[in-house]
Amino acid sequence: MNDVLLAFSGGLDTSFCVVWLASKGWKVHTVTVDTGGFAPGETSRLEQWALQLGAATHETVDARQELFDRYLRYLVAGNVLRGGVYPLSVSAERVCQARRIVEAARARGARAIAHGSTGAGNDQVRFDVAFRALAPDLEVLAPIRELAPSRAEERAFLAERGFTMSEKTEAYSVNEGMWGSSVGGRETHDSWDELPDEAFPGGAIDPLLPPSTLTISFERGVPSAIDGTATAPVALIGALNAIGGRYGIGRGVHLGDTILGIKGRVGFDAPAAHLLITAHRELEKLVLTGRQLAWKETLGALYGSLLHEGLFFDPVARDIEAFLESSQARVTGDVRCILRPRSLAVAGVRSPHSLMTPDAKYGEGSGLWRGEEAAAFSKIYGLAQALALRAGGTA
Amino acid sequence: MNDVLLAFSGGLDTSFCVVWLASKGWKVHTVTVDTGGFAPGETSRLEQWALQLGAATHETVDARQELFDRYLRYLVAGNVLRGGVYPLSVSAERVCQARRIVEAARARGARAIAHGSTGAGNDQVRFDVAFRALAPDLEVLAPIRELAPSRAEERAFLAERGFTMSEKTEAYSVNEGMWGSSVGGRETHDSWDELPDEAFPGGAIDPLLPPSTLTISFERGVPSAIDGTATAPVALIGALNAIGGRYGIGRGVHLGDTILGIKGRVGFDAPAAHLLITAHRELEKLVLTGRQLAWKETLGALYGSLLHEGLFFDPVARDIEAFLESSQARVTGDVRCILRPRSLAVAGVRSPHSLMTPDAKYGEGSGLWRGEEAAAFSKIYGLAQALALRAGGTA
Amino acid sequence: MNDVLLAFSGGLDTSFCVVWLASKGWKVHTVTVDTGGFAPGETSRLEQWALQLGAATHETVDARQELFDRYLRYLVAGNVLRGGVYPLSVSAERVCQARRIVEAARARGARAIAHGSTGAGNDQVRFDVAFRALAPDLEVLAPIRELAPSRAEERAFLAERGFTMSEKTEAYSVNEGMWGSSVGGRETHDSWDELPDEAFPGGAIDPLLPPSTLTISFERGVPSAIDGTATAPVALIGALNAIGGRYGIGRGVHLGDTILGIKGRVGFDAPAAHLLITAHRELEKLVLTGRQLAWKETLGALYGSLLHEGLFFDPVARDIEAFLESSQARVTGDVRCILRPRSLAVAGVRSPHSLMTPDAKYGEGSGLWRGEEAAAFSKIYGLAQALALRAGGTA
Amino acid sequence: MNDVLLAFSGGLDTSFCVVWLASKGWKVHTVTVDTGGFAPGETSRLEQWALQLGAATHETVDARQELFDRYLRYLVAGNVLRGGVYPLSVSAERVCQARRIVEAARARGARAIAHGSTGAGNDQVRFDVAFRALAPDLEVLAPIRELAPSRAEERAFLAERGFTMSEKTEAYSVNEGMWGSSVGGRETHDSWDELPDEAFPGGAIDPLLPPSTLTISFERGVPSAIDGTATAPVALIGALNAIGGRYGIGRGVHLGDTILGIKGRVGFDAPAAHLLITAHRELEKLVLTGRQLAWKETLGALYGSLLHEGLFFDPVARDIEAFLESSQARVTGDVRCILRPRSLAVAGVRSPHSLMTPDAKYGEGSGLWRGEEAAAFSKIYGLAQALALRAGGTA
Repeated sequence: MNDVLLAFSGGLDTSFCVVWLASKGWKVHTVTVDTGGFAPGETSRLEQWALQLGAATHETVDARQELFDRYLRYLVAGNVLRGGVYPLSVSAERVCQARRIVEAARARGARAIAHGSTGAGNDQVRFDVAFRALAPDLEVLAPIRELAPSRAEERAFLAERGFTMSEKTEAYSVNEGMWGSSVGGRETHDSWDELPDEAFPGGAIDPLLPPSTLTISFERGVPSAIDGTATAPVALIGALNAIGGRYGIGRGVHLGDTILGIKGRVGFDAPAAHLLITAHRELEKLVLTGRQLAWKETLGALYGSLLHEGLFFDPVARDIEAFLESSQARVTGDVRCILRPRSLAVAGVRSPHSLMTPDAKYGEGSGLWRGEEAAAFSKIYGLAQALALRAGGTA
Repeated sequence: MNDVLLAFSGGLDTSFCVVWLASKGWKVHTVTVDTGGFAPGETSRLEQWALQLGAATHETVDARQELFDRYLRYLVAGNVLRGGVYPLSVSAERVCQARRIVEAARARGARAIAHGSTGAGNDQVRFDVAFRALAPDLEVLAPIRELAPSRAEERAFLAERGFTMSEKTEAYSVNEGMWGSSVGGRETHDSWDELPDEAFPGGAIDPLLPPSTLTISFERGVPSAIDGTATAPVALIGALNAIGGRYGIGRGVHLGDTILGIKGRVGFDAPAAHLLITAHRELEKLVLTGRQLAWKETLGALYGSLLHEGLFFDPVARDIEAFLESSQARVTGDVRCILRPRSLAVAGVRSPHSLMTPDAKYGEGSGLWRGEEAAAFSKIYGLAQALALRAGGTA
Repeated sequence: MNDVLLAFSGGLDTSFCVVWLASKGWKVHTVTVDTGGFAPGETSRLEQWALQLGAATHETVDARQELFDRYLRYLVAGNVLRGGVYPLSVSAERVCQARRIVEAARARGARAIAHGSTGAGNDQVRFDVAFRALAPDLEVLAPIRELAPSRAEERAFLAERGFTMSEKTEAYSVNEGMWGSSVGGRETHDSWDELPDEAFPGGAIDPLLPPSTLTISFERGVPSAIDGTATAPVALIGALNAIGGRYGIGRGVHLGDTILGIKGRVGFDAPAAHLLITAHRELEKLVLTGRQLAWKETLGALYGSLLHEGLFFDPVARDIEAFLESSQARVTGDVRCILRPRSLAVAGVRSPHSLMTPDAKYGEGSGLWRGEEAAAFSKIYGLAQALALRAGGTA
Repeated sequence: MNDVLLAFSGGLDTSFCVVWLASKGWKVHTVTVDTGGFAPGETSRLEQWALQLGAATHETVDARQELFDRYLRYLVAGNVLRGGVYPLSVSAERVCQARRIVEAARARGARAIAHGSTGAGNDQVRFDVAFRALAPDLEVLAPIRELAPSRAEERAFLAERGFTMSEKTEAYSVNEGMWGSSVGGRETHDSWDELPDEAFPGGAIDPLLPPSTLTISFERGVPSAIDGTATAPVALIGALNAIGGRYGIGRGVHLGDTILGIKGRVGFDAPAAHLLITAHRELEKLVLTGRQLAWKETLGALYGSLLHEGLFFDPVARDIEAFLESSQARVTGDVRCILRPRSLAVAGVRSPHSLMTPDAKYGEGSGLWRGEEAAAFSKIYGLAQALALRAGGTA
């Protein structure tokens, strides 16, 4: 009997997969990779459920620290928000999970890896690509994509074998994780309707919540403290999700391109991601040069695209990480944020590596140059343009 | 007696320039280019003041339509917000003004052009560069930069000649225009302190203002209607500034790089710019391909840099305008915005050119392909990465 | 009986397709799109052969002018040589052909379009993508990809039906066209062996051929004359292929990435493409600003990638064309080239829009600025770097 | 008496500087930084001459290894040839020299640094910027720029003090170094005339020289062997300059943009640079992914611009170096080059990290996918384009 390692979330699709794969003669090992978003006790409930469904073994892997170290750290360094708003929570989770699932498959001596993705979305591609890159010798199985059962058919198949799953039809499909939740359903199938607050895990936002101030500190680009208290990244992100979530910071809807070429619309609730990236970007404005800021923007967006589009294992992503790593050498300092309902503002930033200089106040005169030097600078600075117009260019 | 054309704002610096230039034997012609931001009656008051100071002639030029047509239109098309937040209001105004000032100088037969910029900031460069590019045969004079008088010295010089200017020391220096106001002073000389609401022309924001909904329509990338009522761009921007201003939309502080190599911090209040760009960007997500979005981002940022850095007359800016123009062919549709105090959200977008297709709902199955086709796609799509890892790449 | 339109080259694969499609009940219409590379009389021979094989109708379309106007013109404007060397001859031909084939299919009332590509290369993707984009209602058939017959099987199938095709096994597969020939086979299956001169249509190169000089003129980026004689683009390209081919200009081997994710190696013989792009690029150095040159490089490479990778119908390609078109406004002038065996040098360029100015000779003093102005410029120009090092940057 | 450290080349300009600075009361220390290009015995001749002119001390610094390690290595990794042809020999030398000159100034306790650049070219900016960035506390003197003496005036000044310098008027000004020679004068002051072979240090090229083959090996992007013999970079570059120089490899004329905004034209003779970059680029095509190649191209060009334009100390250059360093991990292998008079061809490349795979031969079928999988891939791959055309896009 051949072993298969199944990425198990405990939902209807992966529950179906356990039973269906076993029915096809596979010895099924399940793994749940924790990248945040689980309620207390949920992972042990999942373990019991997997074994009950017939899994030969089940393992829960806590990958939250790794999620930060290998993925989120670079998303912060690159200020990566897709379309200016969407944190790549799901993409980062999938690659992180894929890596751990391959490790588990190796540990179990599995001959195949299975995932529960349908044939409609991005995750199937991300999983397939990652598994084939990391473990080209293992077969990849995607029963839901292959069979395309309806949810009713899945339930019926499970019920026949004695497994009952809740029939409550959830209006929205939600993916919760450390770097944010994503929400799809109803209104997101079209572009015009508003996704209501109730669709989000965080629910309604109190418009009367008084403002509060929050200082986030960074060391070499890595968030290191909240209001002066040193906090490790995973805990810090948890705290920011709690604080920011009450204000509805980082909640919105994104309309973007999928790997398969169609547009998709998705709600997101990502307080920590928005707080950290907003704060980090503002600190960078103080300590990095204009050229660093501009090229980080370009390469950060590229890095986000690679991650989003299932291209994370292209070696160019490693090269960009090296660039980003280098760029963070002086990104150390404090950022004071003001949180108001659905509104985030940066009140001020400071850093030992600040490029604002007391020698020169913008618009107020400068000890760094004299007026006639500025005039000479302007004259030469504009020369190429003047020559281009003289040679026939259009003004 | 030689003629000089002076760009006249009516403030202390340009008032000083009128008198000083005349004292040096120039026949001074003043021009005030209206790019928005003037209170009713203010331009005629300026005219009287200029003539009183000794200007031989004064002209007020309404350049608001031109400001939109030649500059703001592209800033919307390119979604240009510097550092993700700052609308390039001042830069656009300066180039627009420079062009009109050169025209006026030609009309007056002037031998020189003068501006009142100091030697400390960006505007001196923008003006010098534009004047030299557009009118290389004219001399450029910048008395304030050349003499670097203190404000007290300027007042004394004017007073000696019978001209009294208000001594009220304004804590903040404000530049108001159609595309936004910018605010500098006190807190902006450092990076840590918060610029208070009172410093902004819009003043305090009522946190209890109830939400309101606003639909902005675009035709080929140009804003064309508010809540279904066709409105020409200049009036539309005025209306959005009024509505958005009450909510504090588009207010913030930007920390950025100046042309001269130092960092500067500036407050801005730009309701219309933020509303239009936010709405426009969201509409583009619906109708443009992913590649268009990505390259527009890159070229829009570049275009903003050129404008900000006094490089607008480099012919590459014309080439980018052609790109942006082409990209707007299908950017027609409606954007529903929700305004709340200091918060702007897009509730929905729609367009006759929508790329969201009823054939395929993201995450819900698709009539455009089958599961096995998606599996085949994934397999080939990930091939290059798999080969790179096999050949020794680092995962 | 349903009509199918087959893209017909007259080779074994498309000959097989005529007969096989007919055997499946299709009424087969063949079209040969001439994008250069045909010997005199070859197209009428192809017509007879198609009809003999059973085509209901055959049409020869001369698309050489269109190939230049809609594709090559932009490849010249963008100086597009993939990997620095490879002209995108085949990619441009395929898109051009696809467009004409769709037109022919419409004219014949066809329900399907067929091409003879295998499942191994880029052309299948380019054809499929173009047909689906231009004619989403038509079925796309690719019998060779579907059946994957060996060449012997194809010959046997044809012979059984009375059609004999030459059995000479050609060591190399050659695609000849106006913008160059490509050569694959034997040595190109690995990366180390040299592709011999005999593999190229142009054959051996005489190392003792004396140098000759050639002046190519451009008007707004379009080649317009050779040695002062106005010549239309198609004829001009033909003449340059003849002249340059004797010298082996533009012959080489390219190793590049295919759409499907593997590397491929291909020989090319493209005298006109290399002559025109080399000359054009040098002329641009004289008349365009540094920023134009740099961004044209980036966008030209992108445009080439889109064309190569079967993404030509992404609207971003139209936007890039608008950019390139705009950039060519001043690209008018003459380029003097020196041809030697396997060597091409530009001796000089001149243009009415030259940016070289007699006011300033590089390295020899300048009438455009004084030494102290240059010193002031340097001081301010370097300020940001000095501040960055002062703030802790690494030199 | 204050100490000044003068960058000394021994030419007329820096000879003048020694005497002039001494006449102004400075204690002059001279340093000659050897970045290649010196004939045997030349540096000791320079030392004697400096001391004779009145230098208090003279030092010769051999910086050739450092030139490779800190500059040329990245120029190879980034395949940096400006305008596709020009190796940044002079720019790299100037920064390398500036660093060593600052070190020498520190060692001598100098209060100022002096260089002999005129006010016309790039070098003044590169030196000024580097000195101010590395040693902001030291004064920068540029007597030639300040005084703008004619060469006759310089000679007269020296002669009056007993120093006679050769009056031979050299038609061309040549800068020789390890990474190439640059040549300016006569024909380069305009864009049309050809720079004759006699103007180049390498002189005439024998058109009858028989071809020869050369194999260059790289380890992680660094050249490591010629024809199988391990050779350290400085010696390897010397050898390639000798071999390639005979064939006229890497000789040409570049027309480009100067820092000050005008165009300049310059001849170059850079056999090793062209050999190494051509070979390295071809090896990269074999081992890097398409995305790596494309982004290396962009960042390599940017790196070259920074170096060329005196912006090397912007921290973004360090970030790019990190990217390039990362990208070279698998750039190990051999490149077989064929040298013919004025012509360089790569016959083949090989690497243990090759991405060419025996599983799939381009254009010949593949063991990596089946025809129907390629068809499915094409279908989904082209979807976004088809949807864009359907939604109103222009084909």
